[in-house]
Amino acid sequence: MPRYRVVIEYDGTPFVGWQVQAAGRSVQGAIEQALLALTGETVGVRASGRTDAGVHALGQVAHFDLTRSWAPDVVRNALNAHLRPDPIAIISCHEAVPDFDARFSALRRHYVYRILSRRSPPALDWHRVWWVARPLDAAAMHTAAQRLVGHHDFTTFRASSCQAKSPVKTLDRLDVVSEGEEIVIRASARSFLHHQVRSMVGTLKLVGEGRWTADDVAAALAARDRARCGPVAPPQGLYFARVEYPDA
Amino acid sequence: MPRYRVVIEYDGTPFVGWQVQAAGRSVQGAIEQALLALTGETVGVRASGRTDAGVHALGQVAHFDLTRSWAPDVVRNALNAHLRPDPIAIISCHEAVPDFDARFSALRRHYVYRILSRRSPPALDWHRVWWVARPLDAAAMHTAAQRLVGHHDFTTFRASSCQAKSPVKTLDRLDVVSEGEEIVIRASARSFLHHQVRSMVGTLKLVGEGRWTADDVAAALAARDRARCGPVAPPQGLYFARVEYPDA
Repeated sequence: MPRYRVVIEYDGTPFVGWQVQAAGRSVQGAIEQALLALTGETVGVRASGRTDAGVHALGQVAHFDLTRSWAPDVVRNALNAHLRPDPIAIISCHEAVPDFDARFSALRRHYVYRILSRRSPPALDWHRVWWVARPLDAAAMHTAAQRLVGHHDFTTFRASSCQAKSPVKTLDRLDVVSEGEEIVIRASARSFLHHQVRSMVGTLKLVGEGRWTADDVAAALAARDRARCGPVAPPQGLYFARVEYPDA
Repeated sequence: MPRYRVVIEYDGTPFVGWQVQAAGRSVQGAIEQALLALTGETVGVRASGRTDAGVHALGQVAHFDLTRSWAPDVVRNALNAHLRPDPIAIISCHEAVPDFDARFSALRRHYVYRILSRRSPPALDWHRVWWVARPLDAAAMHTAAQRLVGHHDFTTFRASSCQAKSPVKTLDRLDVVSEGEEIVIRASARSFLHHQVRSMVGTLKLVGEGRWTADDVAAALAARDRARCGPVAPPQGLYFARVEYPDA
């Protein structure tokens, strides 16, 4: 049974999230439906990480096994045809080594969060950014963000629904930069807790507004108390950007 | 009667275009409706240039007169509130000099056209780019584009519906650059004929595919014959980016 590895781009707006759920359309469900249409088989698709409703992906990675050997380009093109009109695109498809696992083989995950910081709402980027009408101090946000980088117990920045065994993670990078009217936050780690990026962004926004200091952020982290987290940032600004594996 | 000048961003996807038409929702109509809701007056809004159905704007400019004097920021914020949920945003609003005319005062108009050149369709930028699945030679397109720059009779690149008195225009700039997976075309002129940018882009795409040479483009221009134009590029890749006036 050949194993395939795909890179996937999607607009999270119309979906209940990556994972198949009892009700509503999921990205995983749409891809499994396209695989059924292509192969006639019920194929399970496993992703490097779940995304919540409304969260986008530029480079989600997933794997699946097919009983027959198909040319990877044929799989990519056929899936893209069957996925219409869902806003999901298979960017690339390759045959993978048999023990490749999109989730467990991943070395590093990269997220991007976009805040539109201007008085007027977005027209073209509605559902694509978090619109914050008041000015934000990106430099102060970046300075405070560095207090979160490193090996920590991230209980404060973890959803109560999080199923990870341990709240201890190593955050490799949390950069905040001002790009035109946007404030762009880039986060990298081997793995993240549920809602971790959105919890950190929502907290950093308080710093950007001048309501919290970098010390407040450090104290919230040290408290290991979910109640000390700022309001969680909304899903529409979050992009699952890229996953690194040993071979790429 | 104070005159106001506004800069407008919109997603052209759900509209029949800028201009009010007998049927369908227009950008102009939505803004006039918002002005009616704000002021109780029927106010005519005049733009620097019309855009077709599906064409976007990053910086369309328009003007209108109100009988009462309103603070410009109040006008901007109130219009944005009344425009919800239409994907139209008033980016800025200023009081203008009485003889300011969004159309006739304009010195230069800037358009951007985005082509997504990759095998897989867009997921996040569906309705935002022209998807061309085969590779395009951006350098060849740029070279050919330079044959269109300057003072010419653009009859070949003009819609049969164009109402301009003369087909003679001066094209100041037509740059084609490769940016990641996109080919971005930037066009600047005092004014454009109807469908001129999309006609030029559709013709340059033939060059990018290797089907036409720069000489073929120059010959098509010299022919002053609409039948010699390449297929007109679709509206969703086109953005009305910016308008220059004597004061800004």
